[in-house]
Amino acid sequence: MTALLLDGRVLAKELKAQISQQAAEFKARTGYVPQLVVVQVAGNAASDWYVRSIRRSCEGVGFGFALHLLPETCDQTTLEAAIQQASNDPSIHGIIIQMPLPSQLSADGAVAALNPQKDVDGLHPTNAGRLAQGLPALVPNTPAGGMALLDRYQISLAGKHAVVVGRSNVVGKPLAQLLLARHATLTICHSRTANLAEVIGQGDIVAAAVGKAGLVTGAMLKPGAVVLDFGINEVAEGQVVGDVDWESASKVASAITPVPGGTGPVTNMMLLQNTLQAAQWLAEQA
Amino acid sequence: MTALLLDGRVLAKELKAQISQQAAEFKARTGYVPQLVVVQVAGNAASDWYVRSIRRSCEGVGFGFALHLLPETCDQTTLEAAIQQASNDPSIHGIIIQMPLPSQLSADGAVAALNPQKDVDGLHPTNAGRLAQGLPALVPNTPAGGMALLDRYQISLAGKHAVVVGRSNVVGKPLAQLLLARHATLTICHSRTANLAEVIGQGDIVAAAVGKAGLVTGAMLKPGAVVLDFGINEVAEGQVVGDVDWESASKVASAITPVPGGTGPVTNMMLLQNTLQAAQWLAEQA
Repeated sequence: MTALLLDGRVLAKELKAQISQQAAEFKARTGYVPQLVVVQVAGNAASDWYVRSIRRSCEGVGFGFALHLLPETCDQTTLEAAIQQASNDPSIHGIIIQMPLPSQLSADGAVAALNPQKDVDGLHPTNAGRLAQGLPALVPNTPAGGMALLDRYQISLAGKHAVVVGRSNVVGKPLAQLLLARHATLTICHSRTANLAEVIGQGDIVAAAVGKAGLVTGAMLKPGAVVLDFGINEVAEGQVVGDVDWESASKVASAITPVPGGTGPVTNMMLLQNTLQAAQWLAEQA
Repeated sequence: MTALLLDGRVLAKELKAQISQQAAEFKARTGYVPQLVVVQVAGNAASDWYVRSIRRSCEGVGFGFALHLLPETCDQTTLEAAIQQASNDPSIHGIIIQMPLPSQLSADGAVAALNPQKDVDGLHPTNAGRLAQGLPALVPNTPAGGMALLDRYQISLAGKHAVVVGRSNVVGKPLAQLLLARHATLTICHSRTANLAEVIGQGDIVAAAVGKAGLVTGAMLKPGAVVLDFGINEVAEGQVVGDVDWESASKVASAITPVPGGTGPVTNMMLLQNTLQAAQWLAEQA
């Protein structure tokens, strides 16, 4: 079997065009330009790179972008004040708290200071709870991107057995909720799972989000499984691989995301979609 | 095999004594008596019965209890005003919105009006999200009671495969989060699951919460499985059975909750425990 490539670059391009058009319609209808703010504490090179990529994404679809950069020595009160200010500013629709924060700062405290309606990363407990309860919510971007890929390639979920490897608050757990809401039978496994290969072998859909290069191999997969790989593991200078062993898995799966070029490129588009959604909800309330 | 009886009446009695003592200590330390309010809209006989049982439970452990009874024709504004009043009253620590509400009223709107810190039923999205994210939370009583039974009988969970049948917001989904937090491998199945018997057969722990009499049979179970039955199905006047077929399942399981007398009696104790927890958290903030 040669697997269908679930191509995140193709989907990201389609979504970019779609979001640009929706943003233009939104502006024509309400007068608002969707506006995203990143609150960042200085001193992390990877964050600098990521924030630039968010800026480019925003500019690419006609959104406003602003960076609120705080000094590396910033204290919790200053950080939360910056988040609250953006939360209360009616011209801002989406807020990202750039992670990781330096060790003197509490991420939970920072997230709690966020207006859940502007929480376009889907990190606030209120959004996690609304997602769990099936209410409208801002959903974390990475798992939302995985779902968008499954939909793009018309992969049905109802009654299928989905196996999620990993239980983080930003990928594994929200992905599990999304798959369950689409009527998949849902298994979450993790580092404490006794018989990982056996559990993975039951998955019609297998999603890996643990950060271990090549953890999921073709031998573990049910022939014909659909594989979503959320891993980003730098195994050598400039060489990034996923949590799934591509070589073996792509021979057994019926469809699979590559790394790079799979779930990754869709993530930023989901951030833009959340920002537009937040802007629409806020405009309805205004 | 003859299964160990997971006896909810025994546990409820132990918890009652424990909570009484903790409430007395709390009063001695802070001067506060834990105080629960039920906001009820008149006109449902089953609710009347349930509210009386809550009152008795409160009285049995020395908590204060008050009923805010609204007329059957009550509108949403009046209901939410009653909930907000209790939410803002510093002498009240726990609030229950008695469900079901009459059809002119929105349960989501009512729950949204609740202070999450007094949400002793664990219904508010913020509590569902805090539970999902592993933060301190007020957890729905029915699944919390199931966990208390597993702990009472020292049933280990880490690395075990737990299968939850049912995905409601009040039992199945929060139970899944609780089992996952205790490092079980977790499967949720439901009405759309293709091969229910096969999935149930993998469970070292099987929890049924769907409301279908006898859905889970002994033939489906892995020999030695631990079975939690959350079903309450009235099959004849005064005769209540669970979602698990007791006759066959109790011969295959290593441990099992009876219905009645299993998970049921523990539920009200979890409500009291939540109320005491809420009172303690609110006292720390005061």
